[in-house]
Amino acid sequence: MKALKIIKIGGNIINDKVALNDFLKHFAQIEGYKILVHGGGTIASKIMEQMQLPVKMIDGRRVTDTHTLEVITMVYAGKINKNIVATLQSNQCNAIGFTGADGNTILAEKRAASPIDFGFVGDVTQVNTSALKLLLEHGITPVFCAITHDHEGNLLNTNADTIAAALANAFALESNTSLYYCFDKPGVLYDITNPESVIETITPNTYETLQKEGIITDGMLPKLNNCFSAIKNNVATVHLGKPELLWDSNIKHTTIKNQ
Amino acid sequence: MKALKIIKIGGNIINDKVALNDFLKHFAQIEGYKILVHGGGTIASKIMEQMQLPVKMIDGRRVTDTHTLEVITMVYAGKINKNIVATLQSNQCNAIGFTGADGNTILAEKRAASPIDFGFVGDVTQVNTSALKLLLEHGITPVFCAITHDHEGNLLNTNADTIAAALANAFALESNTSLYYCFDKPGVLYDITNPESVIETITPNTYETLQKEGIITDGMLPKLNNCFSAIKNNVATVHLGKPELLWDSNIKHTTIKNQ
Repeated sequence: MKALKIIKIGGNIINDKVALNDFLKHFAQIEGYKILVHGGGTIASKIMEQMQLPVKMIDGRRVTDTHTLEVITMVYAGKINKNIVATLQSNQCNAIGFTGADGNTILAEKRAASPIDFGFVGDVTQVNTSALKLLLEHGITPVFCAITHDHEGNLLNTNADTIAAALANAFALESNTSLYYCFDKPGVLYDITNPESVIETITPNTYETLQKEGIITDGMLPKLNNCFSAIKNNVATVHLGKPELLWDSNIKHTTIKNQ
Repeated sequence: MKALKIIKIGGNIINDKVALNDFLKHFAQIEGYKILVHGGGTIASKIMEQMQLPVKMIDGRRVTDTHTLEVITMVYAGKINKNIVATLQSNQCNAIGFTGADGNTILAEKRAASPIDFGFVGDVTQVNTSALKLLLEHGITPVFCAITHDHEGNLLNTNADTIAAALANAFALESNTSLYYCFDKPGVLYDITNPESVIETITPNTYETLQKEGIITDGMLPKLNNCFSAIKNNVATVHLGKPELLWDSNIKHTTIKNQ
């Protein structure tokens, strides 16, 4: 299979209609095979408030009870995903929206209720690339939201960063795959208050040092763990930074390398 | 392409979890190419009430303002569609959920605001079967909700009966296509109070007579107009009745024939 780019966009893009439309216009023009992955937690929380449902978070992660699962299915797979697909179509990018249930693409198992019961949260167990390959080879771009399934009829809430990494790890077995995490900072920073302080390269060795020095903090840790899992699984390159890094090669950002 | 069955299920199945799971178990076992089409108006109205948004209907049709479009996108394409897909997967039927925006499959134009302004309601202008054919030929079953798009970035609310007929009309050009409307009555009835009074066959001639005699009333007219548009467009057979007609050939129901 030809080279593939897997691009995950963060809440700062999803939550801002102008920024999202601008991003999608650029995304549509990226040549070659590509898959988009998005979350939408902030919008889900807003809809929950509107429906007078309580939002419960532990350590920054959403506790997903039955009502929460219903809302995130509506918001991620409905509202956000389908508007992205329609906007991509208007930019001449033929897209199809996916959860992990669609095409049986991403299987997960419900996380154990101990030590913390996160409810209907799924940890990825298997990625099936066949339906996605078929579509990519016919010029169609899959757009994933942060939902998986357990093959027993249950949808599960799964972190979008993890979904992007799981897809990249699976495709890396058969093609040159790059993974991009796009968010509102120009990359991993030495000094979180200084956007100029981008760490341009991180390797497993420097990652360890950066953690020991307390430079990489809690918020960035799960994302970087996903990055290094990808690198270990033969994903060619992993990039973190502002979305502009996708279409402007001069943009400073963080690249994760094996050594 | 091999023979195709396009099956539309009504609100009575969608609104009842036990009935829906039972239907999907049977649907999963139907052999050959198949496409499922569903609506979900009652559930959308309930979510709108929960979000304290007004539900506005004219002549039994939903007036779709911006908020309504948002809710039906969440409910049809998210909540209902993705739960159907996950349930089909658990029944070993590999399904992918679709709106008309996905794969650019169903294009529509926003209905004129006069004489009645229904808001973001779309009339189908074009059906593209290529992505669907590709999936069907690889053993994947498309599941459509009642949403189309205008290729300018807008999603549009489109009647699910019409979507089923539009898909059937497009596929009839290249394959033996049958269309099934499954709802809570055993077919079109001579006497609406008597479920035994099924009209087993309707042709264009008898349809005219039945209308003149006032036997076919307002609620059934748009559905039957869709049926006859399908028959005129070379859809092989159109059936109306309870879902059991799909797996039990002894079930009395209505068949629409050309003559």
